[in-house]
Amino acid sequence: MKKIASILLVLLVCFACKDNADSKETLDTTSMEVVDPLPSWNESTTKENIIAYVTDVTNAESENFIPIADRISTFDNDGNLWSEQPAYFQLFFAIDRVKALAGDHPEWKTEQPFKAVLDNDMSALPKQGMRGLMELIMTTHTGMTTEEFDTTVKEWVKTAKHPTKNVGYDELVYQPMLELLGYLRANDFKTYIVSGGGVDFMRAFVSPVYGIPSEQIIGSRITTEFDYNDGNPRIIRTAGLDYNDDKDGKPLNIQKIIGKKPVFSSGNSDGDLQMMQWAASNTHKSFMLYVHHTDSVREWAYDRDSHIGKLDKGLDQANKDGWTVINMAKDWKVIYPYELKN
Amino acid sequence: MKKIASILLVLLVCFACKDNADSKETLDTTSMEVVDPLPSWNESTTKENIIAYVTDVTNAESENFIPIADRISTFDNDGNLWSEQPAYFQLFFAIDRVKALAGDHPEWKTEQPFKAVLDNDMSALPKQGMRGLMELIMTTHTGMTTEEFDTTVKEWVKTAKHPTKNVGYDELVYQPMLELLGYLRANDFKTYIVSGGGVDFMRAFVSPVYGIPSEQIIGSRITTEFDYNDGNPRIIRTAGLDYNDDKDGKPLNIQKIIGKKPVFSSGNSDGDLQMMQWAASNTHKSFMLYVHHTDSVREWAYDRDSHIGKLDKGLDQANKDGWTVINMAKDWKVIYPYELKN
Repeated sequence: MKKIASILLVLLVCFACKDNADSKETLDTTSMEVVDPLPSWNESTTKENIIAYVTDVTNAESENFIPIADRISTFDNDGNLWSEQPAYFQLFFAIDRVKALAGDHPEWKTEQPFKAVLDNDMSALPKQGMRGLMELIMTTHTGMTTEEFDTTVKEWVKTAKHPTKNVGYDELVYQPMLELLGYLRANDFKTYIVSGGGVDFMRAFVSPVYGIPSEQIIGSRITTEFDYNDGNPRIIRTAGLDYNDDKDGKPLNIQKIIGKKPVFSSGNSDGDLQMMQWAASNTHKSFMLYVHHTDSVREWAYDRDSHIGKLDKGLDQANKDGWTVINMAKDWKVIYPYELKN
Repeated sequence: MKKIASILLVLLVCFACKDNADSKETLDTTSMEVVDPLPSWNESTTKENIIAYVTDVTNAESENFIPIADRISTFDNDGNLWSEQPAYFQLFFAIDRVKALAGDHPEWKTEQPFKAVLDNDMSALPKQGMRGLMELIMTTHTGMTTEEFDTTVKEWVKTAKHPTKNVGYDELVYQPMLELLGYLRANDFKTYIVSGGGVDFMRAFVSPVYGIPSEQIIGSRITTEFDYNDGNPRIIRTAGLDYNDDKDGKPLNIQKIIGKKPVFSSGNSDGDLQMMQWAASNTHKSFMLYVHHTDSVREWAYDRDSHIGKLDKGLDQANKDGWTVINMAKDWKVIYPYELKN
């Protein structure tokens, strides 16, 4: 009976996420004591820390009370809100696009990095280096309008399947993190994504998944040009990197776009470390949360030596400064929302 | 009696603006018929157009209904929400800073553009050209942390007076536009500033004035660097222009930062034209509003030939495409909030 109630609550939270982006609704405080806001989290120090923090800083009687306008939370995306193995999902999009466009480019059969993609030669692909990767991204992400790109990504996600999990990419989000996002919003935090991933790639489909509107999604950007186009204006994506939203680029972009220092920051790699350091320096009491990928069975296990989502310096600083680290294998009852249906 | 009620209402609206940034509260619909949401606007086609538009697109029964998530409104600042004559307020800040810092720079007595500033020679200043202007801006706006700059602007605005109006710069905002911002927010529009002015200059003091939080203020930017600073991280403002939020830069920045096309766009110069064109191409019914400076007595009168706030191509397109143009002299009962106290 308790389990059914718990599942129903999770479904309700998900429903609220999907339909009440940036909702200002607060939880019914009369039921706060009985309703678990984080039902997919095991009872652990991690969960206790999160709830203790939110309870403290939203308590008007506390010396740590944070005014609503300053309740800015920032979340990395890849490896933090959804999986990032065996490669970033956006790279799978690029690979699928190369295959879809190959008919118009017979020369790709012999030219790298396209040949590796068309041959499904995943060992040859990394050998093309950063230059090959950028060519793959630019070829598949630029030379169209923002609307065309948006449509292409939306169409792709409808049918694309993850190569090993064999479910849609939008199903590989972390159920416990969806609950955390909803819990923060229920306590009047504004939830932002601050990701190294492409902002327009994310915006095409993650808003209903996370309950985060496009104006609260920050990411890396392609250069763009405005074209008046005889009264039918359009924005063209051109072949350049406008902004790399990673490492130093995260706090800098937070300052450029939000103009406030986060009080709650969550990431999973060294690429998030500067964002965490920035939040840690807030004069308000702040909360730094690292996801540690420790679950080789249900998800993936990797950290200090990984090429994707390397977590080394970040783990050291988290341990040194007492930041909260999620042990995925121990702290999370389920990883993905579809597990709740089983 | 009606006048007193009107003034009280305006004060209430102002109070709401100041304390309920990004408020989702809606007006009491039972009193909608008797309460004028735009009391400082004369009864005219301009006012009728605005109210007819908002009433239509927020009516769930209308074919023009716009979902709340898409109710994005963008407002230029200089000459649109506050005055911009005889020079942009930010230039007066730069001038005041040069005077304040002159003691540490004896060489400025003979070096342009500083000499012109220190001599109060306002005819020599424009002769320094764009290069002189940029030197003035970079000298006074960079080489400090974002927090230091924020504090400096806040201190400046406390005592600085406009050279001819002799009131604080934050008092020279347009009362009718404050009411329009509040009216839109009461109808669940998100209100954004999209200005050529410096984003951090605006953020230092306009949020309480306009009821717009810093994350909804978009503007031009100085380049910045992140400095970990042995655990006390800071962002340094360095001597470069990171983004010029003018002309094409406005729709491009709206796409970069908001990721949605505005449905309501308001400006006063040709620098806003591309933002207006972008809103005009929305598949939702959109509203384009130009402020035309026609009041040489209460404010300033200027348009096609002005060096500041030139409105030439924009006026032509507004007339051609039927956009709404505010005739400041005829449409506005008062210009500034302090007139209500007289």
